Amino acid sequence: MPLAIMCSGGDAPGMNPAIKKFVDYLYEKGEKPYFVYNGLDGLIDGKIHPATHKDVGGILHRGGAIIRSSRSKRFYEYEYRKQAYENLKKHDITGLVVLGGDGSFRAMEKMSQEFPLNFVGIPTTIDNDIYGTDTCLGVDTALNVIRDALDKIRDTASTFSRAFVVEVMGRECGYLAVVSAITSGAEICLVPEVDFNWHVAREHLKREIRHGRNYVLAIVAEGTKMTFDIADWLENDIGMETRVTVLGHIQRGGSPTVNDRMLAFECTIRAVDHLLSATSSNKVVVVENGNFGMKEIDEIVNNKYQIDPELLGMLNRLD
Amino acid sequence: MPLAIMCSGGDAPGMNPAIKKFVDYLYEKGEKPYFVYNGLDGLIDGKIHPATHKDVGGILHRGGAIIRSSRSKRFYEYEYRKQAYENLKKHDITGLVVLGGDGSFRAMEKMSQEFPLNFVGIPTTIDNDIYGTDTCLGVDTALNVIRDALDKIRDTASTFSRAFVVEVMGRECGYLAVVSAITSGAEICLVPEVDFNWHVAREHLKREIRHGRNYVLAIVAEGTKMTFDIADWLENDIGMETRVTVLGHIQRGGSPTVNDRMLAFECTIRAVDHLLSATSSNKVVVVENGNFGMKEIDEIVNNKYQIDPELLGMLNRLD
Amino acid sequence: MPLAIMCSGGDAPGMNPAIKKFVDYLYEKGEKPYFVYNGLDGLIDGKIHPATHKDVGGILHRGGAIIRSSRSKRFYEYEYRKQAYENLKKHDITGLVVLGGDGSFRAMEKMSQEFPLNFVGIPTTIDNDIYGTDTCLGVDTALNVIRDALDKIRDTASTFSRAFVVEVMGRECGYLAVVSAITSGAEICLVPEVDFNWHVAREHLKREIRHGRNYVLAIVAEGTKMTFDIADWLENDIGMETRVTVLGHIQRGGSPTVNDRMLAFECTIRAVDHLLSATSSNKVVVVENGNFGMKEIDEIVNNKYQIDPELLGMLNRLD
Amino acid sequence: MPLAIMCSGGDAPGMNPAIKKFVDYLYEKGEKPYFVYNGLDGLIDGKIHPATHKDVGGILHRGGAIIRSSRSKRFYEYEYRKQAYENLKKHDITGLVVLGGDGSFRAMEKMSQEFPLNFVGIPTTIDNDIYGTDTCLGVDTALNVIRDALDKIRDTASTFSRAFVVEVMGRECGYLAVVSAITSGAEICLVPEVDFNWHVAREHLKREIRHGRNYVLAIVAEGTKMTFDIADWLENDIGMETRVTVLGHIQRGGSPTVNDRMLAFECTIRAVDHLLSATSSNKVVVVENGNFGMKEIDEIVNNKYQIDPELLGMLNRLD
Repeated sequence: MPLAIMCSGGDAPGMNPAIKKFVDYLYEKGEKPYFVYNGLDGLIDGKIHPATHKDVGGILHRGGAIIRSSRSKRFYEYEYRKQAYENLKKHDITGLVVLGGDGSFRAMEKMSQEFPLNFVGIPTTIDNDIYGTDTCLGVDTALNVIRDALDKIRDTASTFSRAFVVEVMGRECGYLAVVSAITSGAEICLVPEVDFNWHVAREHLKREIRHGRNYVLAIVAEGTKMTFDIADWLENDIGMETRVTVLGHIQRGGSPTVNDRMLAFECTIRAVDHLLSATSSNKVVVVENGNFGMKEIDEIVNNKYQIDPELLGMLNRLD
Repeated sequence: MPLAIMCSGGDAPGMNPAIKKFVDYLYEKGEKPYFVYNGLDGLIDGKIHPATHKDVGGILHRGGAIIRSSRSKRFYEYEYRKQAYENLKKHDITGLVVLGGDGSFRAMEKMSQEFPLNFVGIPTTIDNDIYGTDTCLGVDTALNVIRDALDKIRDTASTFSRAFVVEVMGRECGYLAVVSAITSGAEICLVPEVDFNWHVAREHLKREIRHGRNYVLAIVAEGTKMTFDIADWLENDIGMETRVTVLGHIQRGGSPTVNDRMLAFECTIRAVDHLLSATSSNKVVVVENGNFGMKEIDEIVNNKYQIDPELLGMLNRLD
Repeated sequence: MPLAIMCSGGDAPGMNPAIKKFVDYLYEKGEKPYFVYNGLDGLIDGKIHPATHKDVGGILHRGGAIIRSSRSKRFYEYEYRKQAYENLKKHDITGLVVLGGDGSFRAMEKMSQEFPLNFVGIPTTIDNDIYGTDTCLGVDTALNVIRDALDKIRDTASTFSRAFVVEVMGRECGYLAVVSAITSGAEICLVPEVDFNWHVAREHLKREIRHGRNYVLAIVAEGTKMTFDIADWLENDIGMETRVTVLGHIQRGGSPTVNDRMLAFECTIRAVDHLLSATSSNKVVVVENGNFGMKEIDEIVNNKYQIDPELLGMLNRLD
Repeated sequence: MPLAIMCSGGDAPGMNPAIKKFVDYLYEKGEKPYFVYNGLDGLIDGKIHPATHKDVGGILHRGGAIIRSSRSKRFYEYEYRKQAYENLKKHDITGLVVLGGDGSFRAMEKMSQEFPLNFVGIPTTIDNDIYGTDTCLGVDTALNVIRDALDKIRDTASTFSRAFVVEVMGRECGYLAVVSAITSGAEICLVPEVDFNWHVAREHLKREIRHGRNYVLAIVAEGTKMTFDIADWLENDIGMETRVTVLGHIQRGGSPTVNDRMLAFECTIRAVDHLLSATSSNKVVVVENGNFGMKEIDEIVNNKYQIDPELLGMLNRLD
């Protein structure tokens, strides 16, 4: 029973290890693996090809995804979803593994309601903004890329009295910012989920500076759109020479960490096993308290991810 | 109620984040933190000093441990344990956080049976060979240091037809080797827990080489003491030019990963909370299925860690 | 004859290796080394202390500078320079090694015209904007930190059709941007020294995109202040989804490269030898065509650094 | 006039940037670039193919060489060299760029005396053991990979009283060991070029240990074959717990440094320009005191590289 794997939406480290395991595991099972190139657009345009061991040689340590990814406006139209289905049908593919976020899962769910097709989603995004799972493929690598950048800034921070503002990714979710702030001991962390109390922060910093603090590290989630506001505030209100770093896409690159590789393998095996089982249906592979499970698409896409309050509690308190 | 923190046995990345959290958290609680320098030897020699915020500034991203560690023969003698206790008593310290392995926990348990003293152990070793916990402080960093080394070898492996033998740490435990082999796609993995079938491996490799394989990566756990045997075998029996890498102490260095920092924080908070509680007693902080817990020293030190069979099952099968 | 070392202006990787060599080499010579902490401000405030081997243990691989640096407005006033001189006199220090840029050299030159004091400047800045020397302490490390960031972006670039704009440091000098663009194969490079031809670039990119190019990497020198203009242009005129990275102070951090450590050692030895020589006078240590030399302060501070035209010629030509 | 590029002998970081520049630059010149795959063996077997821009996309930051390399016994026989020449002739290739060491240059020289063929050698080896040039392609990257490993060991060294022995590559040449020892501040450095005075070293270390030294770092060049002897000596004679690291092929991997990329570009451009010139003849591109030049094959292959005595003088003196 032929299965295909596809990446959809923003890329994340860990996609390549998942792609490799998909191919190796299907051959081990005696089944035929296919690649859908270029995500949903490739599905519409029939960019579907058989996958070989050779295709996945030496990709474990590469960032990105060898089968590429995309976002697709066309996929919102029935005609194009129909075309996508027929492309799969040509190869007798009735099951898909989809590496992506809830947007991609929603799109696939719609398609699979219209046509006889099952898929299993593997939550894949560095933003860690997907409901129902503790972590997503790519998060651990992104956090350690950020860590490496913050280590470099720390290294030099104490040389010169200065404030550093570092913007990290996460779209509407502050997870990357919170964990980065906790593990780098940042003095300030701005996230969309929490209001920033300028007054309290000012009093706190002024007091600390009086007590000898000579630098400040502020982590800002891109979702707050306040990176340059906080920089101005530190420069003018707090009176520290301030430097801004916007990490951007560096956070999506780099060799996947050991955790992300293991996560990719574990999720892919579960996704394939489910698609090959008699009772196959649409699911998302999740991790809860360190245990793997399967959840309904609806539950995943109809709820909003919330940061664990205990995590927020571990931030340096400004009081 | 004054508490002290001590490192004992081999060092591991993550000790410094634990030390920093110990100091910051105790001050937050209004308690007085102490450092025991040089492990058990320092305890005997009274190297016990109050800890300040300043002591732990800018250490989060440093490998090693600023309070140093040691192994101690003297501690086996009652006289020295008595002396160690009296040193703690001078500072009214009745509770200790101990970063180390089961040997250290056993030693401390003995002492606390003889004198009114409680301690909480935080499993800290890159070898991941401690019973009752899924992971230990330092393991994630060590795995990613190994990964970085293997990525470099992979990068160049396909340029030249060759076999690479890489020895990783772990003492009697094959965990580092197994996870490294799985996540780097190594063809061969030798660990103390599993007999290596030379005949099957030879047939397997010969067949793969006939089918075009032009390099082999073998991960060997130091505990097998077979690093150079396997290299000779690859060179002479299999007939591939072979190169050996012995990673050694590189695996204990490097900036702690985000996971190891979070683990250090979580364990230290739990250890301190327990020592400050009325019902305090000797415990070890553990992680099971992603959940934190506390276990009796006896259970930890009287059982042997076993690698999860499912992990062994994920190794490339040589058949 | 006691000598002191001081850092002045922006910090750069390589300062610590220079500081270590300064101490070790003076002891080797039987002379007494001093540290001036906090740069020119520390000189004014008498933050001058004897340096020991212990002070410089384990600092070779640390970014930043253990003796800190600063910029000083007070130093423009004679009264403060007089005070600074008297602080040095207390310790019979008549020679200084100064790690900094031309601004710092100019300030020290003024002081040494007013008081019996010699200094040797070691060009230290990641910006590589000092006349008369091919390279400055810190440049090689900064270039490789940028390289590491660009490698991560390249890794993922081909996964998704996108444009990446990366802002690098260099103040008014485009050196870091030019070398980074050449060695990363960037399609676009904006520097203060060269006018950017929007029209030609547009035609070029449009043509390349028609021929299948699916991503663009643009390196922008901070001195152009055009980072976000070019991003808008790529997004709107060229029509590619665009992401911005502002590397900021990451470029000043990280462990000094082997080249920067060797450069630090070589320059420090020459600086010390000159200050200890009978004919000592104010100089700057320079590197020309791979050879070390000494130049007059005037020549260094009264001329403007120009990027080698041959280097500019190696940029991807947009025609 | 069609030209080909070939890698021969051990691989080194920087080969891919040279390969990319070769292709891009020849197209810029309106000439046709060819790849010889698998080195001299591939030359004999006719593995010669036209190269396209697409072949060299996204390889700048990859270690190894996409056209692979090899050593060849067959090439010693006239018949095979004749066959190799005829393979080139089929494509009208009369000029080759050869990335390799003196062994490869000698082999090509022989061939080009027998047949109408010119080549330019680019010294490419991490061992830096080629006469007539200050540096070779790959050396800077290898030195920084070693540095990164030594930084990790330093990080943890002071935590535990211990000696660390690190074996680095270099075949019969001690260059990598010497520069690594200088820039990491190693206490001991063993190279083939210098006799190691066991007695003096023992007295020196004993004295330092009495004065409080608690760890020793020893860098050993593989050419000395003394890695494990020195480890035994440190363990038993000096009496320090000792750990061995054999870096092995990690030193040939990793993303090429900025210096190695620039060196690759500069050498390739000069090699191509020379081969396209009317007066073309066999040469090797060299770097002397930071200046590029061309030398005769004979001079390169008939002399032995010597480490700069000044470099040896910068090693920690054991007296």
